[in-house]
Amino acid sequence: MASLPAPDPSDQPDWNLRHIVDELRLSREVRHKIRYLDRIRELPSREVLTNVLTGLSAALFPTHYGQASLTDETIDYFVGHTLSRTLDLLVEQVRRALYFSEPPDALDEAELRRKAIGITRQFAAQLPAIRAVLVSDLHAAYQGDPAATNISEILLSYPGVKAITCHRIAHAIHQLGAPFCARLIADIAHSATGIDIHPAARIGSSFFIDHGTGVVIGETTVIGERVRLYQAVTLGAKRFPVDDNGVLAKGIPRHPIVEDDVVIYAGATVLGRVTIGHGSTIGGNVWLTHSVPPDSNISQAKMLEE
Amino acid sequence: MASLPAPDPSDQPDWNLRHIVDELRLSREVRHKIRYLDRIRELPSREVLTNVLTGLSAALFPTHYGQASLTDETIDYFVGHTLSRTLDLLVEQVRRALYFSEPPDALDEAELRRKAIGITRQFAAQLPAIRAVLVSDLHAAYQGDPAATNISEILLSYPGVKAITCHRIAHAIHQLGAPFCARLIADIAHSATGIDIHPAARIGSSFFIDHGTGVVIGETTVIGERVRLYQAVTLGAKRFPVDDNGVLAKGIPRHPIVEDDVVIYAGATVLGRVTIGHGSTIGGNVWLTHSVPPDSNISQAKMLEE
Amino acid sequence: MASLPAPDPSDQPDWNLRHIVDELRLSREVRHKIRYLDRIRELPSREVLTNVLTGLSAALFPTHYGQASLTDETIDYFVGHTLSRTLDLLVEQVRRALYFSEPPDALDEAELRRKAIGITRQFAAQLPAIRAVLVSDLHAAYQGDPAATNISEILLSYPGVKAITCHRIAHAIHQLGAPFCARLIADIAHSATGIDIHPAARIGSSFFIDHGTGVVIGETTVIGERVRLYQAVTLGAKRFPVDDNGVLAKGIPRHPIVEDDVVIYAGATVLGRVTIGHGSTIGGNVWLTHSVPPDSNISQAKMLEE
Amino acid sequence: MASLPAPDPSDQPDWNLRHIVDELRLSREVRHKIRYLDRIRELPSREVLTNVLTGLSAALFPTHYGQASLTDETIDYFVGHTLSRTLDLLVEQVRRALYFSEPPDALDEAELRRKAIGITRQFAAQLPAIRAVLVSDLHAAYQGDPAATNISEILLSYPGVKAITCHRIAHAIHQLGAPFCARLIADIAHSATGIDIHPAARIGSSFFIDHGTGVVIGETTVIGERVRLYQAVTLGAKRFPVDDNGVLAKGIPRHPIVEDDVVIYAGATVLGRVTIGHGSTIGGNVWLTHSVPPDSNISQAKMLEE
Amino acid sequence: MASLPAPDPSDQPDWNLRHIVDELRLSREVRHKIRYLDRIRELPSREVLTNVLTGLSAALFPTHYGQASLTDETIDYFVGHTLSRTLDLLVEQVRRALYFSEPPDALDEAELRRKAIGITRQFAAQLPAIRAVLVSDLHAAYQGDPAATNISEILLSYPGVKAITCHRIAHAIHQLGAPFCARLIADIAHSATGIDIHPAARIGSSFFIDHGTGVVIGETTVIGERVRLYQAVTLGAKRFPVDDNGVLAKGIPRHPIVEDDVVIYAGATVLGRVTIGHGSTIGGNVWLTHSVPPDSNISQAKMLEE
Amino acid sequence: MASLPAPDPSDQPDWNLRHIVDELRLSREVRHKIRYLDRIRELPSREVLTNVLTGLSAALFPTHYGQASLTDETIDYFVGHTLSRTLDLLVEQVRRALYFSEPPDALDEAELRRKAIGITRQFAAQLPAIRAVLVSDLHAAYQGDPAATNISEILLSYPGVKAITCHRIAHAIHQLGAPFCARLIADIAHSATGIDIHPAARIGSSFFIDHGTGVVIGETTVIGERVRLYQAVTLGAKRFPVDDNGVLAKGIPRHPIVEDDVVIYAGATVLGRVTIGHGSTIGGNVWLTHSVPPDSNISQAKMLEE
Repeated sequence: MASLPAPDPSDQPDWNLRHIVDELRLSREVRHKIRYLDRIRELPSREVLTNVLTGLSAALFPTHYGQASLTDETIDYFVGHTLSRTLDLLVEQVRRALYFSEPPDALDEAELRRKAIGITRQFAAQLPAIRAVLVSDLHAAYQGDPAATNISEILLSYPGVKAITCHRIAHAIHQLGAPFCARLIADIAHSATGIDIHPAARIGSSFFIDHGTGVVIGETTVIGERVRLYQAVTLGAKRFPVDDNGVLAKGIPRHPIVEDDVVIYAGATVLGRVTIGHGSTIGGNVWLTHSVPPDSNISQAKMLEE
Repeated sequence: MASLPAPDPSDQPDWNLRHIVDELRLSREVRHKIRYLDRIRELPSREVLTNVLTGLSAALFPTHYGQASLTDETIDYFVGHTLSRTLDLLVEQVRRALYFSEPPDALDEAELRRKAIGITRQFAAQLPAIRAVLVSDLHAAYQGDPAATNISEILLSYPGVKAITCHRIAHAIHQLGAPFCARLIADIAHSATGIDIHPAARIGSSFFIDHGTGVVIGETTVIGERVRLYQAVTLGAKRFPVDDNGVLAKGIPRHPIVEDDVVIYAGATVLGRVTIGHGSTIGGNVWLTHSVPPDSNISQAKMLEE
Repeated sequence: MASLPAPDPSDQPDWNLRHIVDELRLSREVRHKIRYLDRIRELPSREVLTNVLTGLSAALFPTHYGQASLTDETIDYFVGHTLSRTLDLLVEQVRRALYFSEPPDALDEAELRRKAIGITRQFAAQLPAIRAVLVSDLHAAYQGDPAATNISEILLSYPGVKAITCHRIAHAIHQLGAPFCARLIADIAHSATGIDIHPAARIGSSFFIDHGTGVVIGETTVIGERVRLYQAVTLGAKRFPVDDNGVLAKGIPRHPIVEDDVVIYAGATVLGRVTIGHGSTIGGNVWLTHSVPPDSNISQAKMLEE
Repeated sequence: MASLPAPDPSDQPDWNLRHIVDELRLSREVRHKIRYLDRIRELPSREVLTNVLTGLSAALFPTHYGQASLTDETIDYFVGHTLSRTLDLLVEQVRRALYFSEPPDALDEAELRRKAIGITRQFAAQLPAIRAVLVSDLHAAYQGDPAATNISEILLSYPGVKAITCHRIAHAIHQLGAPFCARLIADIAHSATGIDIHPAARIGSSFFIDHGTGVVIGETTVIGERVRLYQAVTLGAKRFPVDDNGVLAKGIPRHPIVEDDVVIYAGATVLGRVTIGHGSTIGGNVWLTHSVPPDSNISQAKMLEE
Repeated sequence: MASLPAPDPSDQPDWNLRHIVDELRLSREVRHKIRYLDRIRELPSREVLTNVLTGLSAALFPTHYGQASLTDETIDYFVGHTLSRTLDLLVEQVRRALYFSEPPDALDEAELRRKAIGITRQFAAQLPAIRAVLVSDLHAAYQGDPAATNISEILLSYPGVKAITCHRIAHAIHQLGAPFCARLIADIAHSATGIDIHPAARIGSSFFIDHGTGVVIGETTVIGERVRLYQAVTLGAKRFPVDDNGVLAKGIPRHPIVEDDVVIYAGATVLGRVTIGHGSTIGGNVWLTHSVPPDSNISQAKMLEE
Repeated sequence: MASLPAPDPSDQPDWNLRHIVDELRLSREVRHKIRYLDRIRELPSREVLTNVLTGLSAALFPTHYGQASLTDETIDYFVGHTLSRTLDLLVEQVRRALYFSEPPDALDEAELRRKAIGITRQFAAQLPAIRAVLVSDLHAAYQGDPAATNISEILLSYPGVKAITCHRIAHAIHQLGAPFCARLIADIAHSATGIDIHPAARIGSSFFIDHGTGVVIGETTVIGERVRLYQAVTLGAKRFPVDDNGVLAKGIPRHPIVEDDVVIYAGATVLGRVTIGHGSTIGGNVWLTHSVPPDSNISQAKMLEE
């Protein structure tokens, strides 16, 4: 067979691949090991959970998030089929997540799958109730935003609605015992909306976040009914308690309690396990680290405005 | 045919699907009904409008947002074909949106389609003018950011440029009578950039937003020529007027007027129908609820810096 | 062949396409020309660089960002193959980017490709070191967030981790001489996370950003080891120096130096070439434009809290 | 802006596109016009009809052609949803096809759509009967092929089964008045299997074609119950009758009648309106242009074997 | 909320879906039941096996069927990664297929998976040997076709090469105990090439089929070394033995033995357990049902040519 | 970190990958080497050429093979844009193909690309003429098939039309000097239609193949005007001349000449450099190896029919 002059090396790049691959293996296995258990486990998938969110949204609001052309005759088949596919996906993600919340000696495969099915079945049973509270949120958005013209616009284009939809799903999954899945769902919502709600936060009905970019709602926050937030509001922790070994204590109540009918304007920061009494209004950019009684009206000091 | 022991129920999950599907139908039709009209209508699609934005961007800046390999010979075919496909998509979305802005008794299908075609044709005719003002925005970005090194980098990587491109398209569609489409386009931009500009806001040429995350520009805002904003600036409403029935009045001027050549630094909040006089500079984190004369230089009170 | 009445014009829309295409060409070529050189060049592609980021992330953390089912036997093939495809993509993007950073008279095609291969080869050699510092960032996240429960959750769901992963890649590419590519990578991360880090910024190991939305880190920022930031922190420029012709001077140090072991809480703004001494804590919403000595503890003036 | 030497023309190919586009338009509009009516109509789409076939196959045999993981609980939702989507697609294709079978003065849009819906509704109602006869075909295949080991293998891998499935669907659509759609479905099957059955051919139950490549069954063929064919069998026309003007007469019976329980071996050719009596066997490569009585056993002349 | 006149029923088609879905369920479960076992099992997937074929072809001939741009440095990573993914896919398909070849009381899930892994591991070990014999087939094609100009053209464009590649893979899988998978692979090749080779057929090295459409090679055929076939050759069964109950006996040798160095021209039909002696030539369209000694030269009777 | 019992090896299959990869490399590089030159070259891609065929078909018959919704206003943009993309793809495939038809010492990269552009430009210029002759073929199909009802049906569903469309494109590319590309296009058509036409065959206008499966037309065949073929017709070589070394001589005329107005019925075989005189009819299954004068009417010997 014919011969050809050796090609210019710059045309066939030599990446020194073998060396890099070896170094990366060394990094993974010896130098900078991060594997939790000795055994490789399949991790929950952000992509699949994104599909789960799409499927659940479509099952809850079929003509808005599913297929616009559904009719009275076809809609139940769509809902049933969409749920069936979505719950199958969710079971597998929950199963993978359980590796991380169960003690290592409980990692029996069949048991984990049974547990994942149980969690998913309980979650599915809650969907009608989740839809009910989401409709209360939609009405809150319609009433709270003078620029809103109809419910469909709110469902399709309000980031605050997307965020609370994801949160109500994530919160249910968190409560049922699959916090890793819940966390991923929360971050999918965060990436799409700029609104960061920890899945453990408890939020009452008729909740509305307007604009929303930069909102942060921490893990142990409790929010009542008919609360309204604006962009860049932080409901955060003031400080992080450490245990006797100087390790951060996890799960201790450290975020605000916001009672019913509170409005918090853009950029306000509320830190620590304080209580905002019902009916209060917190002004924009306010910095608040103590409790306020019901019907308070807190605004920034006057001098700031000059 | 052969028989097999009944499978372990945990392997074939039983979701109680029929019950959930029935409950969701009850929720949709009776308990938590949100349908605006008795008849199902096809809603505008966020996905299709995302494609419309991609197509319009490609038609306006073909080598940057379309095909990098276009030549003088092929570019017009690309532009014409891309526009043709994109306008076809847009007509259908505008048609769907018109259901929401027209009175219910005007919902004649043929008439709606004719109207949608008319709106789309007028929109298409504005594209060269939209390109002209976008080029002024690009030059403003180049001059306003010391880190910018060339126009192509700005076109491809500046969120502020993406936001204003979407806004100029959304604003034109809003003005022509398809506000639902405009709102969806604005939210697509918001999700990608963290910049939330209501499509009704009026913004002059040579406009630049740097970094941009958290910027909010309200519905009745008016912005002049050569204005520059930084991240987390809010041009918002101070309070929401209610009518005699306590219902939020919609569409009333309630956001700031920002005159020519104003710069507003990061985190500043300007609320209400106030006027920032031309040539003014508003400092970072400033909270402003009254008008300021031309050439003002507003900054935070000194004590804040200590 | 059969004839048919002329269709209703409203059914076959006439967009006046030829006129619009001509106007857009006139805009591109004459009225609002933005082309840098007379010759059309292929621009770097945001889509391809997104794939490059996906590929590099998968090579660095194969079971988290690549394929969950990898085994000890298959993982090196995955890493090698993924790197091979990804580096091929990157070479082409770097080559396109070089048009913008090289002087016009250096635009010899073969030379540019050789240079692009050289840059990519050097970049590839740094990947094990990049992985090492990213693992330090992961440990910092685990120790810094009381809500974190395991490293996998942090890798998959923390926006701050995504942002710093992209930054460490972008920074390496920037330093090696392809700043346009680096800028696009930074903006891809910004769009996904709301965190805007200029690729030129220098950031030490064990770095953590919590929540992250609205963080801005400017071009000439220098950050030490073990620094922690919260959402909406700005490390920005105070003013932009202009040269004798009033043109913005580019590249001059104008952003803060943050020394080792500093914590900066949410919403704090630090502007100008100031130094935050090691071990300092900067409180939420603080506005800071001067240097502070080591171990400072800066918080907002008291009156703000009432 | 900087200038650059004109590129080597061979790098930026000049296709003389404008001239070619003009010539092609001239060819379409003047020189080699093939348009049936003066008005452009949307044609049925081969791609969409391929999806229709996929959908119908999945509705008929859900676990074989749809989703392998269906359970008793989910299967009806799958079938209902799949049918709903598929019938929507089919309506549109039938509507487009009707332009070609209706007289030009009947082309009222609303009427055509109503008619398309009516045809599709009637077709849908026949699906259970179509399934019944297809199951008879499956049993015929199982009994007729010594290499067959189970029904699932036959459903998934026998080209004869794919061909008859498509034919039974195409035939129903043909009979209901949408022959253009039926023809496209027949050609999709032909391309996949090498078996060419005209959709107008009438074929009884328990029909089996083994191997199948090269089988041709003409437009006016009539086939009884329990007939078996092998590869390369032709049931064709002997000659084409012309009318008084020498034009081919269309639709006249000109293909064979094959009665019940006939077997025709590979490569046999039967031409003209002849009748193969019930129970007959036609040997391989036989060339037959006259009728044969029941229970005939026709084989090639002996000398051929030597 | 506003009301609207009931829509024209023809616009919202009513398919009578519930009735059709019920009838189809009745057909599946009662009237025309085809399920082999009472329990639903997941069937092998034609789509996945198509991907398996693509993957195996790429592993065997990486630059032809995989990635054209592979280099000496990257090719092994490509081969290893491609094999890894493909074998994972194949294991699952083999597992599903085993349900059909194992006795029902052997259907223990874990055992089936272990067995599937064992089969796949043995198959993988044969790949180098499969490649060796395929290269002999390529050389046979190059030497046998005067129109062939190089090996690459043969690999990329000869249907006979695609067919024998699939057959050698299918045959190995068949011999290892997964005949259902093998059958599907054979039919994928049949659909693409018009060449139908039963996976159980035994074929020696340096085998070549030219053109190929209509070739049929039956289950118990045995073919020696250096055999060449042309289009429409049938190596079939003459009659099907039935057992005492009149049921087709399966697996009995009933197809030809073709010894080394035989050429069979287009359209020839060889039926039954006959032997074509080595070195023989069988002419086009010959019909042969008895054995012929070595070095025979069989052609059609003379009169046929006139 | 926690420890876990070693997993059951059967769950994490060990493929012995390293050994297989090494064996395959040895097979590629030493034992069964097929590489033509020492240097790896990128091969033409079947997938890309499939896209080229799709693009060219769409440019030639835009509403049939392109977009059904094109209007007079948009069609030229579609055609121009489609051609532009398609010719770009074709240039690259021609460039790759040229490696195989040029002598090794001519393999200068820039020269090859220039030559590929030249070939593609000449090909593009022939497209209007190709369309003209294809329209003659369409009319021949309409007149030749009594089952044909309109030209659109023929364009969309006749395999003979697809085959001749591909052939006219492949033949032009073959004649211009890129035979490898032409061969791949011919095989794409063969796989889709069962019709195998060598790209070098010369075929006059108004050509029609009905049904088509199994048709083979050899490399040096010459076909006149208005010829009609049916399924399974072979125009082949009788024997293959060998040169003095016993090597097959390539390119020598060895296939039939079919003059104007000939009809050849199904299954007929014509072998060798014979001439079928104009106006002749060749009957089904006829075996012909000598020339016949004009207006011959050849049919099978009578005895075959009984």
